[in-house]
Amino acid sequence: MSDKEKIKTTVNIHKKSYTIVGIESRDHIEHIAELVDGKMKEIYDANRNLDVSRLAVLTAINTMNDYVKLKEEYDELIKLIEEED
Amino acid sequence: MSDKEKIKTTVNIHKKSYTIVGIESRDHIEHIAELVDGKMKEIYDANRNLDVSRLAVLTAINTMNDYVKLKEEYDELIKLIEEED
Repeated sequence: MSDKEKIKTTVNIHKKSYTIVGIESRDHIEHIAELVDGKMKEIYDANRNLDVSRLAVLTAINTMNDYVKLKEEYDELIKLIEEED
Repeated sequence: MSDKEKIKTTVNIHKKSYTIVGIESRDHIEHIAELVDGKMKEIYDANRNLDVSRLAVLTAINTMNDYVKLKEEYDELIKLIEEED
């Protein structure tokens, strides 16, 4: 992909700005950033002593946990559909 | 839930240790931590100048993006199943 097809989006997460470069629309990246920011805020509110890097890693762990659980449900659904056929 | 029912798991991510307390099994938490560590390593290898907090936030964004995409597919699948009934 050429550079001019890439979209640059700047978002704010936990009071710092991040520039994301990729193929996703600005709206999509802003939505993702809002979700991450919300999750970081939740974890920060529960543990105000966490430094930013630990907070961010815990946010990544939490998000990965959600992903893995959803993936299990998704795979289960696919299996059920395949069994029906 | 009482404290004694909670499981404490210590994991290593990007050369730092994190203790996670919750209801999930150690195996599950270790699996999640390995996935986060792998994703962080990938992003770090592509941007060696990133400090740990930015690296972790980008990892969280990346994982959230995967989650949202999978959620869309999952919802689409549920819709298809409901239409069939």
